[in-house]
Amino acid sequence: LLTGLDNIQIFSIGEGDTPLIRSQQIGPSLGLPNLYFKLESLNPTGSYKDRFGALAISGLVNSGARYCLATSSGNTGASLAAYAAVAGLPCHVVVVDGAPLGKLRQMQVYGAKLWMVKDFGLDARVTQETFDGLRDLATSLDTTVQISAYAYSPFGMQGVQTLAYEIAEVLPEVQHVFVPAGGGGLTLAVAKGFEIWSSVERNFDRPKVHCVQPEGNDTIASSMRNGAMKAQAIANSRTKISGLQVPGVIDGDQVLKMAKTQGGHGFIVEDQEVFQWQRKLAVKEGIFCEPAGAVAMAGLVQAMHLEEIDKNEIIVCLITGHGFKDPDAADRMTMQNHIQYIDNINGLKRTLDE
Amino acid sequence: LLTGLDNIQIFSIGEGDTPLIRSQQIGPSLGLPNLYFKLESLNPTGSYKDRFGALAISGLVNSGARYCLATSSGNTGASLAAYAAVAGLPCHVVVVDGAPLGKLRQMQVYGAKLWMVKDFGLDARVTQETFDGLRDLATSLDTTVQISAYAYSPFGMQGVQTLAYEIAEVLPEVQHVFVPAGGGGLTLAVAKGFEIWSSVERNFDRPKVHCVQPEGNDTIASSMRNGAMKAQAIANSRTKISGLQVPGVIDGDQVLKMAKTQGGHGFIVEDQEVFQWQRKLAVKEGIFCEPAGAVAMAGLVQAMHLEEIDKNEIIVCLITGHGFKDPDAADRMTMQNHIQYIDNINGLKRTLDE
Repeated sequence: LLTGLDNIQIFSIGEGDTPLIRSQQIGPSLGLPNLYFKLESLNPTGSYKDRFGALAISGLVNSGARYCLATSSGNTGASLAAYAAVAGLPCHVVVVDGAPLGKLRQMQVYGAKLWMVKDFGLDARVTQETFDGLRDLATSLDTTVQISAYAYSPFGMQGVQTLAYEIAEVLPEVQHVFVPAGGGGLTLAVAKGFEIWSSVERNFDRPKVHCVQPEGNDTIASSMRNGAMKAQAIANSRTKISGLQVPGVIDGDQVLKMAKTQGGHGFIVEDQEVFQWQRKLAVKEGIFCEPAGAVAMAGLVQAMHLEEIDKNEIIVCLITGHGFKDPDAADRMTMQNHIQYIDNINGLKRTLDE
Repeated sequence: LLTGLDNIQIFSIGEGDTPLIRSQQIGPSLGLPNLYFKLESLNPTGSYKDRFGALAISGLVNSGARYCLATSSGNTGASLAAYAAVAGLPCHVVVVDGAPLGKLRQMQVYGAKLWMVKDFGLDARVTQETFDGLRDLATSLDTTVQISAYAYSPFGMQGVQTLAYEIAEVLPEVQHVFVPAGGGGLTLAVAKGFEIWSSVERNFDRPKVHCVQPEGNDTIASSMRNGAMKAQAIANSRTKISGLQVPGVIDGDQVLKMAKTQGGHGFIVEDQEVFQWQRKLAVKEGIFCEPAGAVAMAGLVQAMHLEEIDKNEIIVCLITGHGFKDPDAADRMTMQNHIQYIDNINGLKRTLDE
């Protein structure tokens, strides 16, 4: 189901085969008896990007590259850093000016070298010059810049298709999969995966793969809803959902093309809804995810409001990354949950006796 | 292989079935071709305690308990909080006075209520009164205090035995398993698990289960090494390794008894060695673990120095918890890895051209 892997050494650190668990509280409370969560948060570096990182780095090593070069201020960078570490490949990551240091720390843990370029990500000219310069540098070093999108790194993105294979194998009757989208690479990978699976397993009916975006980064979802064939770049992303701030089209047009044949819909959600579902996933399901990991769930609720799903259908929401990734989110989620300071255990006893 | 589970609803959020991966750099560099890591860090809340939490909470619900009561300032509390959340059981955790708020945050994320008792954990009398008071409170509420040790919660600890079953199934030729120990519950669970497995699978030869402790909390390891049958409580734990600061005997005597028949050894390691291996696991294997997760690896190196293993033997080190758990450790691991601030991509180019 994957191509071009013959005779390649694959560097693996335990990615994939993540749990697919049935909702125990949220689904029943919404009247959805067949709601499942795919816990991509339990990948080695805490996000689905490890499916990409494993193949991207293995491909680089196989091609004789001596470096991994990347631009990322988040999960892709952390994943590439980890796989570069195990492959013994020096990893250099160019990060946007002013990127929060807490999110960069994980890349540094794995030994990646970080380069913060003045005005990169802030000034359009500098941003373009940086991308161009990095691509030229990569070419001169006989390597390629790794970006988790089909538009840039199709070989690595094949790894993400395994997500669909796993769902299809464990839950072949699946009817809907809700996927968060920034540039659309994940949505495209999941849709492609189901297409390939259905070409091999003739009895398998492809589920609808839905694309959910925060309204501050609606590059694909509205186009999909309107039946348009072109994604729309925006000047600046306005969402606060880390990882989904991708103003460019990237894989968007391909997502729209795929949806046309497979029947997926676009859904637009508000950041506040996403944060609320992030909290509910923790306190009702014991699932601690990063904000982007709650976007699919928020999209499903939109679909219910729009009456675009039947309550008995079999639904999977992708939980794309772990809550550990975003310490600020944990602070926000627990703002109302104060520690009680007591002199002795009677303080607790009085509360429980009430 | 587990008992007392008939007709019990088991609350699961994806615990267990963690990856067992072969070392790609550290093993070969030490001349150990058959070194494996069991990534317990990839459990839902980031540690092996989820194997305990799942059964402990399921047992409570089955017994009709209306509360989960616990004392923990770390991984056990986070795990109980997550499973109590999905089971709809209010979770109250009594924490030691002055416990770092960052480590408590994860319990709060899942909605657990935290109670910090003045001088608990600091003053011996208050500590004992708090334990006694909590136990009495639990009894009056028809529940039991959940502590991840056979001495207190044997039903829940059965879940931890599944760790051994998984290793035995995937790697039946395993000869050594290195386990970090505080109160010894994990070591005992793994040893019991292999014993039970070997009683069912007659061709299975039990591996030696080794107990590794930081020298600042050597309650079991030296006794094991000396062939003594009694663990030794210490007045105060002096190790900085979070999770292994357990001055009491707890399951220690049972560990020694088990080692006598199974042949496991005790190993004592220094905190600094542990921190070094934590860093090497990240930059050489792409494994980001909390300090306690690197203790087994440090113990294996001790065993090599003592010439107590053969280089071709088949060895598993348990990686017990994720590095995300301990933000301070990530800060320490990256102290030498500075971000480079550059004006344009030429700054990176010059470095790579050198």
